[in-house]
Amino acid sequence: MTTATNPRVLEHPAREEIRLEAVLHALSDPVRLRIVRCMARGDGDAFSCSYFALPVTKSTSTHHFRVLRESGVVRQVYQGTAKLNMLRRDDLDALFPGLLHSILTAAEAQADRLGDA
Amino acid sequence: MTTATNPRVLEHPAREEIRLEAVLHALSDPVRLRIVRCMARGDGDAFSCSYFALPVTKSTSTHHFRVLRESGVVRQVYQGTAKLNMLRRDDLDALFPGLLHSILTAAEAQADRLGDA
Repeated sequence: MTTATNPRVLEHPAREEIRLEAVLHALSDPVRLRIVRCMARGDGDAFSCSYFALPVTKSTSTHHFRVLRESGVVRQVYQGTAKLNMLRRDDLDALFPGLLHSILTAAEAQADRLGDA
Repeated sequence: MTTATNPRVLEHPAREEIRLEAVLHALSDPVRLRIVRCMARGDGDAFSCSYFALPVTKSTSTHHFRVLRESGVVRQVYQGTAKLNMLRRDDLDALFPGLLHSILTAAEAQADRLGDA
């Protein structure tokens, strides 16, 4: 008997498997931080990867979304051939109250300061 | 005329040069996060690198402290042949109000949850 892995099901850490270090690593990259800032403004909306019009190649973009998914920052589901992304705000807020808010606030302040809104 | 670089003077970013992404990267490593948690309990104290008794080689320890210094998380000064480390709490709080507190709180909560205090 063999076990087939469904390639359409993307692996995610359960809430209790999310680690602070992985979340901080995921958010330590300027492109990933920009993605998350943008999603946070969407208030629970689902975004396709292509929505963000990132200044990187498709494979780099795929890598960034995988880091965000595997760290527990976003949830990804397939819709047709596209992947939709949702910020796991409830999980992050439950595990680390105030953390996401303070990082997003810091990111907005820095963007304003550097003229990079 | 030549310019000599004093090897006893360690380079630090000025407050306005500190970047959120670099701070998050510095704190995304378990060893570095442990160092900063420990320093934060010291309320402004200066700690030698050897104080922390880290489970890593000396060169790895030196690397971790350099990442913390270059990101603006700690200030390092020589005292004899040892380096002393101080958390740059004032600079971080001024740039990113609430950020360090929320990360340290999240780290403590996770350590409690995982039995890794």
